[in-house]
Amino acid sequence: MSQLRSVPTLDDVARAAGVSTATVSRCLNSPERVVEDTRKRVMSAVEHLGYTPNFGARVMAARRTFTIGAIIPTMENAIFARALQAFQEELHARGYTLLVASSAYQPEIEEEQIRSLVARGADGLLLIGHDRDPAVYDYLKSREIPVLSAWVYLPDTGQPAVGFDNRRSMFALAQQVIDFGHRRIAMISGITKGNDRAAGRVLGLRDALQANGLDPEAMPVIETPYGVENGADALRSLMQADARPTVVMCGNDVLAVGALRGAQDMGLSVPQDVSVTGFDDIELARIVTPQITTVHVPHREMGRKAAIALVDMVEKRSTGDVVELKSTLKIRGSLRDLNG
Amino acid sequence: MSQLRSVPTLDDVARAAGVSTATVSRCLNSPERVVEDTRKRVMSAVEHLGYTPNFGARVMAARRTFTIGAIIPTMENAIFARALQAFQEELHARGYTLLVASSAYQPEIEEEQIRSLVARGADGLLLIGHDRDPAVYDYLKSREIPVLSAWVYLPDTGQPAVGFDNRRSMFALAQQVIDFGHRRIAMISGITKGNDRAAGRVLGLRDALQANGLDPEAMPVIETPYGVENGADALRSLMQADARPTVVMCGNDVLAVGALRGAQDMGLSVPQDVSVTGFDDIELARIVTPQITTVHVPHREMGRKAAIALVDMVEKRSTGDVVELKSTLKIRGSLRDLNG
Repeated sequence: MSQLRSVPTLDDVARAAGVSTATVSRCLNSPERVVEDTRKRVMSAVEHLGYTPNFGARVMAARRTFTIGAIIPTMENAIFARALQAFQEELHARGYTLLVASSAYQPEIEEEQIRSLVARGADGLLLIGHDRDPAVYDYLKSREIPVLSAWVYLPDTGQPAVGFDNRRSMFALAQQVIDFGHRRIAMISGITKGNDRAAGRVLGLRDALQANGLDPEAMPVIETPYGVENGADALRSLMQADARPTVVMCGNDVLAVGALRGAQDMGLSVPQDVSVTGFDDIELARIVTPQITTVHVPHREMGRKAAIALVDMVEKRSTGDVVELKSTLKIRGSLRDLNG
Repeated sequence: MSQLRSVPTLDDVARAAGVSTATVSRCLNSPERVVEDTRKRVMSAVEHLGYTPNFGARVMAARRTFTIGAIIPTMENAIFARALQAFQEELHARGYTLLVASSAYQPEIEEEQIRSLVARGADGLLLIGHDRDPAVYDYLKSREIPVLSAWVYLPDTGQPAVGFDNRRSMFALAQQVIDFGHRRIAMISGITKGNDRAAGRVLGLRDALQANGLDPEAMPVIETPYGVENGADALRSLMQADARPTVVMCGNDVLAVGALRGAQDMGLSVPQDVSVTGFDDIELARIVTPQITTVHVPHREMGRKAAIALVDMVEKRSTGDVVELKSTLKIRGSLRDLNG
């Protein structure tokens, strides 16, 4: 039974790592004062033996677990997968382990996961976007847990981030669409409530209509969860209008792939009968026929730079900056040039 | 600075939850003796305040964190995403939080993540497949951490699992392919070393050749990491042979989608010039044209049943069973019936 399991002591760890108990203490309390090799040997003995310091008798803040937590809205459709993979590779190179939780786009689940990761000793957290209850940031501040956001560039929030400007990126794509002669534009957006990336993309498209003398309020917009079936349903509904759009701009590539399938189900050709655009440039966008015109997000660069920035915050070399990365347009077969 | 952060006490938790300190203790040490509502209120106060019991003075085993760890080989291509989503939903319904790590198919990274999850207090672990260093199982046994595998049914190992028979599933698909008149069969497999799912699928295909009087040793097999580009490269190389295969059977849908693209790049039509099959039935398989013939894996059922089984192990209602789920064939446009 469990009561028979012996609890490893500081002495056990010191013996296993071949160092003094003082060195083990130092590794746990002030790791920056211990050389890399020794630290790794000691931490490996700590993990191997399952030694857990007596938190009640120590100041927890000084202890470091070399674990970083990340909470992403979804693991499906691999929207966040490539960035997360690069994030993990860079953390690994710096001696940190990544634990991930997925909130299903539900703020209350995200909050639960934040508290759980903090309780499990995460040294720092990566979150997607900034749009959440301010109490969450207060809590993390009170626990002195550095937090960095990815996927957004919203410098006015004052929150550390490594990301890109969703609004400006969608503006650029919409300008290209308009330059190609499209005037009847419809949008399939992700759910904007609690999602500043989705909201920014809708604003960017409206900005572009306005800047080109079109009425942003007249544009049909359907909000729906990110999912292939949802994109297909939304496209069918948009194409039942009297004045069909010539282009359906989607909040991400998953919706765009769905829109493509919805059009095919209706016997419509893309881009001859209707053009479709996406956002993200995930692998899906190049697998379908025709390939999807989209905004390329620098997934791997974002993941790598976020890891560097967050470790700098955890190791107190930085209090966190706001870093903007560039997105680029990928014009592919799903968008028709009406001038051509 | 960090030294100013006050450490919450048992009294703080009791006050916040509106219960006695004895009840808090009971929640931490014998949660099964506390009614659900009270336990949730206390655990929420524990997480909210960031209370950490004095491990040194307790028997750690009796403590439960209501955190489950899962380590999957990759987050890319969403191979494991749907099952993991169902796993998490079921855990959430039972009051557990899921933390995920991704090992990039590297055993040494997986080991590091196992130790980290155990050190962070995971009550139980979900792993993919059984094929790993026995020392890992010894370690988990010595720490009394229940571990359950998914994606495999290999009862001879004696390890608890909720999965399906990869070998028998691939046998069934290969039998269908042979019934459709195919004799020149080639395979694009994932890397089989350390991956009992990939290895089982190769064996299943060889079994079917043998059972039908074909020479399993004569079948061309390319092993390559799971990736769209890898599948495309492998197909091009297989199609350069003098006697081209009439069908290329792939170890999963990601490779099959790559093979499809490789064929298209060579100007070959699927299935007129060459048939392609996959395995898993992830969303990708139905998004491409033609849709991929594949083995349907019961992703959501597997995730849900794995959660139920693992929580039963953590809460000592079970020592872990070996559960077999059924896979089914999905015959779609990418496979040509040569008799027809």
